[in-house]
Order: sequence, then structure tokens, then C-alpha cells
Amino acid sequence: MVGYDTHKDEVLKRLRRIEGQVRGLHRMVEEDTYCIDVLTQVSAATKALQAVALSLLDDHLAHCVADAARQGGEVADAKVKEASDAIARLVRS
Amino acid sequence: MVGYDTHKDEVLKRLRRIEGQVRGLHRMVEEDTYCIDVLTQVSAATKALQAVALSLLDDHLAHCVADAARQGGEVADAKVKEASDAIARLVRS
Amino acid sequence: MVGYDTHKDEVLKRLRRIEGQVRGLHRMVEEDTYCIDVLTQVSAATKALQAVALSLLDDHLAHCVADAARQGGEVADAKVKEASDAIARLVRS
Amino acid sequence: MVGYDTHKDEVLKRLRRIEGQVRGLHRMVEEDTYCIDVLTQVSAATKALQAVALSLLDDHLAHCVADAARQGGEVADAKVKEASDAIARLVRS
Repeated sequence: MVGYDTHKDEVLKRLRRIEGQVRGLHRMVEEDTYCIDVLTQVSAATKALQAVALSLLDDHLAHCVADAARQGGEVADAKVKEASDAIARLVRS
Repeated sequence: MVGYDTHKDEVLKRLRRIEGQVRGLHRMVEEDTYCIDVLTQVSAATKALQAVALSLLDDHLAHCVADAARQGGEVADAKVKEASDAIARLVRS
Repeated sequence: MVGYDTHKDEVLKRLRRIEGQVRGLHRMVEEDTYCIDVLTQVSAATKALQAVALSLLDDHLAHCVADAARQGGEVADAKVKEASDAIARLVRS
Repeated sequence: MVGYDTHKDEVLKRLRRIEGQVRGLHRMVEEDTYCIDVLTQVSAATKALQAVALSLLDDHLAHCVADAARQGGEVADAKVKEASDAIARLVRS
């Protein structure tokens, strides 16, 4: 079972909305929309993607990492290391 | 004429690719892909969106802002202020 | 005991170095250093601060959050919520 | 003359304050302050550094880049390229 199991529908809905935002960006560029207005929408889509990432991460910590911590040992260490690496990628993206 | 005029096809191609990445994310979540693997793809899509933003901004500075600077006066000041605000939104997103 | 206990000396050393970087920035501005060179150093200091944050977070997950997960119940939930909020602040800063 | 000439005192004051924030972080770690409280302060210092960067960039566009645009030719292109690179470093840091 994945960490986001209980929020799956919500995550799918958000991703559908972001797909629509990116399609909207394509249309804006096709119609020669003013650069700054395109940029504002790119920032909005980026923020929406980050919100999905934070929600997935939250569920991952609450379920996958917490379960591993209860098992302890190397499994727990590996899960924490893996989560930390994902957080680092997120902070740097 | 918009700042990204000479790179329009490239921007459209990139946006199409990002739309595909987001659709891929939707499929991954539907198929219960492991959280960390979904997160890695979210980071990749976020980075791709930022690259589009930086390319749009580059063109905007080189054309729209530079043109306004040559006109000088209030037009120039307004364009710089507008670009600075867009950069701030980008840095904070 | 705090999560970063075993890395305390390293964290302190890093913070001392960042303090030096910020003092260097002050001197650069005082001496009218070219904007772009100042900006390059601001980016370096920002990256160094983020690296400290990621290291603190790693230790926090490995110790404080993992310990709470083993206790389970509300304590565990509260720790995960608190860590998620800190990660969100980090991603958005 | 540097772009931030008219805001020099303000930039220096902000940098002094950030130096104090980093020194405060050092003290917090020395005194074994709880990880999350340290992280909150790291996020605050990071945000303050970014605000300095955005202010330097704003002045740089309004003065150095605008001046170069008025000269036109290769000088203008080089200045825009240089500014775009600095913005990219900022967005990615």
C-alpha cells in the first residue's frame, strides 16, 4: 500500500488540474500572450506541483517512514535516508 | 510582438513535454507507484517548468525590457518593476 | 537530546562559515562591488543555509520523528505534522 | 557606479541583520535548541537573503541593464545574458 492511499483521489484531481494549467500555458503561448502573463501562470503551475509534492511527502512520512521506524534497524535508516534525499531534490527544484 | 517570438516553437515543444510529464504523474498515482518515485517525477516536472520560466524571462529582458529602456522615462521604469515582480514570484515559487 | 546531537560540531562549523560569508557580503557592498558578483555570493550563502537545513532535517527525521513513530499514537502524528510543516517552509523559502 | 548605489545603506543594514540572524542560529545550536525551532530560523534567514538578492537584482535591471540597453549592440546583449544567468542561479538556490 502506498503512503498517499487515503488521499489518492485528491492527488489525482490536483494533477488533472495541473495538466489543464499546462495545456492553458500552451494555448497562451500559441496566442502570443504577453510574456509576464505567461510567467505568472508558470509560477502558479509550479506552486501547484510543489503543493502536490508536499502532500505526497506528508503521507509518505506519516505512513511509509513511520512504519519503517517501528520496524527499526537498517530498514528504518534506509527509509529516512531515501526521504531526506527526496526532500533535498524538492528544496533544490 | 512578444519577447519569446523567436523561441516560440521551442517553448511550445517544452510545454507539450511537461503536459506529458504531468499526465505520466497521473498514471503513476493511479497505478499506486511508490511515493518516492512519484516525488522524483514531480521534481523533474517542476524543474522543467522553471526552465521554461527562465527562458521566457531571458527573452523578455532581451526584447521587451531592453526596448522600453531605450524609450526611457516612465515606460522603462514600469517595465523593470514588472519584470522584478515576475522574478520575485519565480524565486518564491 | 536534540536530533543533530552527533553532528553538532559540524553544524556549528558550517554556521560560522556562513556568518563569514554574510560578513563578506557586507564588505563587498561597502566597497561597491559589481552587483552580479554580490548576487553570486548571495546565492552561495543561500545554498549553504539550505544545506544546513537539509542536514538538520535529516537528523530530525532519523531521531526525533523515528522515536515518536515507535511510540505511536498522537505523539507520532504530531511529530510528522510538525516535520511536514518545516519541510513546507523550507521548500517555499 | 553600482546599481544599488541609492539603496546601499539599506542593503548594508539588511546584511548586518542577517549576520545577526546567523549568529543567533549558532547560539541556538550551541544551546541544543529543538531542531524544528532552529529550522524555522534557518528558513527566516534564507528568506531574508533572498529579499536582499531580489532588491539587488531590481536595482541592477533598473540601472546597469537599462543603461546597457540604451547603448545597444553587444554590450546590451552581454548584460542581459549576465542578468539572466544570475536570475537562474537565484531561482535554483
